[in-house]
Amino acid sequence: MARIVQKFGGTSVADIERIRNVAQRVKREVDLGNEVAVVVSAMAGVTNQLVNWTTEISRLHDAREYDAVVATGEQVTSGLLALALQDIGIDARSWQGWQIALKTDDTHGNARIEEIDTDQLLERLKAGQVAVIPGFQGIGPDNRITTLGRGGSDTSAVALAAALNADRCDIYTDVDGVYTTDPRIVAGAQKIDRITYEEMLEMASQGAKVLQTRSVAMAMSHNVRLQVLSSFADVPGTLVVNEDEIVEQRIVSGIAYSPDEAKITLRRVKDRPGVAGGIFGSLADAAVNVDMIVQNVTEDGETTDLTFTVGRSDLDRAAKVLDGIKEDIGFTDMIADPTVAKVSVVGVGMRSQPGVAKTMFQTLADRGINIQVISTSEIKVSVLIASDYTELAVRALHTAYDLDGDVTT
Amino acid sequence: MARIVQKFGGTSVADIERIRNVAQRVKREVDLGNEVAVVVSAMAGVTNQLVNWTTEISRLHDAREYDAVVATGEQVTSGLLALALQDIGIDARSWQGWQIALKTDDTHGNARIEEIDTDQLLERLKAGQVAVIPGFQGIGPDNRITTLGRGGSDTSAVALAAALNADRCDIYTDVDGVYTTDPRIVAGAQKIDRITYEEMLEMASQGAKVLQTRSVAMAMSHNVRLQVLSSFADVPGTLVVNEDEIVEQRIVSGIAYSPDEAKITLRRVKDRPGVAGGIFGSLADAAVNVDMIVQNVTEDGETTDLTFTVGRSDLDRAAKVLDGIKEDIGFTDMIADPTVAKVSVVGVGMRSQPGVAKTMFQTLADRGINIQVISTSEIKVSVLIASDYTELAVRALHTAYDLDGDVTT
Repeated sequence: MARIVQKFGGTSVADIERIRNVAQRVKREVDLGNEVAVVVSAMAGVTNQLVNWTTEISRLHDAREYDAVVATGEQVTSGLLALALQDIGIDARSWQGWQIALKTDDTHGNARIEEIDTDQLLERLKAGQVAVIPGFQGIGPDNRITTLGRGGSDTSAVALAAALNADRCDIYTDVDGVYTTDPRIVAGAQKIDRITYEEMLEMASQGAKVLQTRSVAMAMSHNVRLQVLSSFADVPGTLVVNEDEIVEQRIVSGIAYSPDEAKITLRRVKDRPGVAGGIFGSLADAAVNVDMIVQNVTEDGETTDLTFTVGRSDLDRAAKVLDGIKEDIGFTDMIADPTVAKVSVVGVGMRSQPGVAKTMFQTLADRGINIQVISTSEIKVSVLIASDYTELAVRALHTAYDLDGDVTT
Repeated sequence: MARIVQKFGGTSVADIERIRNVAQRVKREVDLGNEVAVVVSAMAGVTNQLVNWTTEISRLHDAREYDAVVATGEQVTSGLLALALQDIGIDARSWQGWQIALKTDDTHGNARIEEIDTDQLLERLKAGQVAVIPGFQGIGPDNRITTLGRGGSDTSAVALAAALNADRCDIYTDVDGVYTTDPRIVAGAQKIDRITYEEMLEMASQGAKVLQTRSVAMAMSHNVRLQVLSSFADVPGTLVVNEDEIVEQRIVSGIAYSPDEAKITLRRVKDRPGVAGGIFGSLADAAVNVDMIVQNVTEDGETTDLTFTVGRSDLDRAAKVLDGIKEDIGFTDMIADPTVAKVSVVGVGMRSQPGVAKTMFQTLADRGINIQVISTSEIKVSVLIASDYTELAVRALHTAYDLDGDVTT
């Protein structure tokens, strides 16, 4: 007997038929004698509709009301799944965030889970009742509904698995696992059986949209065994685990890419203390996420060229912020390039294996792809290239690191 | 300065534009210096969609899950209206039933309001904040969401007005008041300026679908001044008040009708004590509402013919129940007629004025309309007729009691 948390995303619960299908998957775990808690997303499309209504009705944004509106999507699914389970003879009930209680901080619209009261849940789970919990939401210290930000249902599931001390957290989605790269780009992309948290984190934040980054980080810090698998196909998924659970580690596990980047270069920034803080502080205040940052010293020795990347959809906002502080900071020009992409090579094996970066640069050079910015961590190398070359680069790197599998069509 | 509860129905909040329109109506009361609490229905069509999902997914019906699903419709509207109010500079927040708390009994799907904690609400209202409350729902003793049954938002509004000791409860709907009869049938139907609770109760339960019966009964018992008015037109509505607030009382205030009735006759029922109790008890257990009941003694003196009406949609269910107890109760035949309608003449004035019933019977006889069953109360006379004659009867009675106004087209 094990305790399992299952999470089903929006496409997995898109309509009544699919919710019935989800009920069957839950039943399978119950029939194995397991205790099961299920976290559900809103039916596909519902959250977008709700978000659109809130933005249509008011440009001002009271995040507390936004949360009250948007959280209903998952509430609907939780009740429907409980009904579907009861319909096939499984004892089940829905638990809203405020009933559990699943407590978050007060950052409405983007709250963090702080504590989950598990007494009631555990009692029911042990009695054999399936708990169905709306993802993406909780209750704030103001006794109002909070939401965790888009994709937050993964985080709900992992947090719940941690709080319940679950043996496994299964994330059911519309793909059957984590691949060495995007199979839409590389036909020979292979499903990864086991991947480490660190790698998954890089893959997720580098644009492999299978799991929300935050949920992976949380799984890592609480040691939650994560499994990514398909709602629709009966095939093994990908297990996200500690490094020591992976016997044979490849040097490079996967190639991630993020096509929607924009590059900003500030020319001749006055090179004095506090300048970088001023620039990136202002961008952070405007909620612009800055990613890769490179600074070059110019010939005169008094100014510097500063280059960094932001999400493409943040470019206009970033430009506005920078325009506003131009006098203050002191730079001559701002050059924005919205046609860049980030490509990353990820693998824990590269820690012990030199030459990974060299292979990357060589491979790209061989294809005539210019590298604009480089950024590295212990287990990944990322480069910024012109976005037109994205697919070419991903394919070339996938081959260069020997990741291509058999192509079955 | 007054304290007002406003309630807006589903068609009044059917889309974002209409919710903005509602916000303007709320603003008008706020601008007058009034304290305002607003009760909202789900956007038109939403509740039906949610109900359909619950019935589609499971024929078994856990009313607690049904409630969790169906209550989301009003929750969405409450958040959206709060946003719309904020957008035009009005301080407002949504209050879910469990936040208030609006406490009900545990009859999920058809709960009764038991108590409303008004401390927090009153504090905010006095501070000038508009409270937006989802209608039709509350929180049960099991800490789970309850709903009040279809049309329950009227009841929410009246209960809230009573608890808040409000000066008025304005029910905004898609008609501009209560009419002497259905204007779709009688072109000369007139809007009633003031109507008593008792009359409104008869009009509502007799098929004038402007206000939910339960909400009128509650308004009467708590002395809540009710006003029915249009969300779309700026014209005076109908005020529902105590009899002493109406200076000149007509003898007959209105003609109500209910087209969807069915008549059941049980032939030669054994005439012994407990028989009627057995029949109507069994029907009540099956949630079949029985309305008009007539019993005739037959010639033999030992059996009786029993005739009564049920809602047409309940007929099959009723027939099944009766079939099941036929042996037990002892009757020879069951004759069902699904083609009957009930027409009622309503008015508190008839208490002091004899001859109202006579006028009704004469008018119908003159038109060749056969009266099948008669039922009376202090302030109404109802007859059952063949449903084909419904419109003819309503028009003739409307004229006979001098209710016709000028026809403007």
